[in-house]
Amino acid sequence: MNPSQKTGLKNKQAARPGSPIILMQGEYMNTAQTQATQDIHAFTEQARDAIYQAIFSRRDVRGQFLPTPVPDAVLSRILTAAHYAPSVGFMQPWNFVVVQSAAVKRRLHDAFALAHAEAADMFDGEKRSTYQRLKLEGILESPIGICITCDRERTGPVVIGRTHMKTMDLYSSVCAVQNLWLAARAEGLGVGWVSIFNQSALQDALAIPKRITPIAYLCVGYVSHFYAKPELESAGWLPRLPIEELVYFDQWGRHDEQQALIGHLRRDQAEAQKTANLALMQSR
Amino acid sequence: MNPSQKTGLKNKQAARPGSPIILMQGEYMNTAQTQATQDIHAFTEQARDAIYQAIFSRRDVRGQFLPTPVPDAVLSRILTAAHYAPSVGFMQPWNFVVVQSAAVKRRLHDAFALAHAEAADMFDGEKRSTYQRLKLEGILESPIGICITCDRERTGPVVIGRTHMKTMDLYSSVCAVQNLWLAARAEGLGVGWVSIFNQSALQDALAIPKRITPIAYLCVGYVSHFYAKPELESAGWLPRLPIEELVYFDQWGRHDEQQALIGHLRRDQAEAQKTANLALMQSR
Repeated sequence: MNPSQKTGLKNKQAARPGSPIILMQGEYMNTAQTQATQDIHAFTEQARDAIYQAIFSRRDVRGQFLPTPVPDAVLSRILTAAHYAPSVGFMQPWNFVVVQSAAVKRRLHDAFALAHAEAADMFDGEKRSTYQRLKLEGILESPIGICITCDRERTGPVVIGRTHMKTMDLYSSVCAVQNLWLAARAEGLGVGWVSIFNQSALQDALAIPKRITPIAYLCVGYVSHFYAKPELESAGWLPRLPIEELVYFDQWGRHDEQQALIGHLRRDQAEAQKTANLALMQSR
Repeated sequence: MNPSQKTGLKNKQAARPGSPIILMQGEYMNTAQTQATQDIHAFTEQARDAIYQAIFSRRDVRGQFLPTPVPDAVLSRILTAAHYAPSVGFMQPWNFVVVQSAAVKRRLHDAFALAHAEAADMFDGEKRSTYQRLKLEGILESPIGICITCDRERTGPVVIGRTHMKTMDLYSSVCAVQNLWLAARAEGLGVGWVSIFNQSALQDALAIPKRITPIAYLCVGYVSHFYAKPELESAGWLPRLPIEELVYFDQWGRHDEQQALIGHLRRDQAEAQKTANLALMQSR
């Protein structure tokens, strides 16, 4: 450590909002200076908490939809949130088919019912009867359906960032789904992603051309209640995995209990569930 | 409309927090009652604004990373946000390889450089020279890399919701990416998704088994600044599409200028850009 680094003068100067801090690896930086840098772009604690509350209390809603109409102003905001998703090569490959017609919902429900019966046959014994008891969609009960699609040819054959990972355009549309889902949670709207469709039946019900890939059919509406946990977790289908077991360091499979991160992860996973419980209690 | 509906008594009773409102299609519901129902689960206006601010001011960051260390507490929060993504059949198919080693980053950068050169050859003429001038990754400059993966065999061959759309597990891991990205934005962290890799080279650099699908390699770190617009938009590569042209009603291709939603969408897209500009100014 050289004297100029010890005084921290260089760092203090650099920590001025808007001017980048250039430090070499191993250079000294104290906590206060780190804090100053973080504060430039971080949201307020309250605003940050709102983001985490949306993330931790978001649920896949199937059976709690109310017929309360969704105002156009609200529907517009969640669609705009979807449109501001990241997209590979700025393709914006998505479209949004907003479904309000009862006849179209009926066709979609028929398509679901067929696929659902096929799906049940794929499970064995006890899993099959549990599967058949699960409520997996709210197509008819939700006032709004939104089909989010991907037009893989939107900006021509060669797309920046899709040259090697060919599925990046599909992933962009998925990011739009997740943006919409979180915005909807903040608006008090439930969203349920129905994926039990034969693709061609979903395309037929909405007149989607074969060259367009349907990514998600989302049931959207106000709800009587949100559950504190995913329904499949509550039903004992599968447990929430401990996050610290999912995190590796530098190479696949490399755990490191000595890393301070591990303790943080354990605490944060417990906190996440408390946040979800709290969001539920506040709205009752 | 029958008399009991006209008095609204049934609805008032049902609008009590926690008790579901059951209305038949076409039944009467006045605005005040609609409002009461919405308020049960909606976030406060401030909290909602925070969600939209994160969504509209999130950027794909390539060239603005600072070497400022990311505290474990912050890294833990954004990873936990990722772990609370929706997943098909509650598979939670993701892992997170956290990259801090300079040697591993170098291997990743080599893998990028090779794919990047291959990619440049796919563009013609002027597009090629523009492509070559673009800064597309911050692998070496960002203090943290996070590879988010998908283990397609995590919960056996038959997965609820993946019986017909086989890519749903990949999409779950993408939702984890987007959760992490939005949480990071609220923490003041930039994230850049690098997708210009040959999949096997990315797997080799991180010792990821062939049966595991890498979904995203994310560069993560504090930044000198966020741009108000996506870099490809500013560079004139492609424009932001007008959202109202992307929205159809009930059937693919069906526009309806008479829908009040269209006006809302136009206004909200303009507002979204103002929100992004404001977030930028506030942090300077």
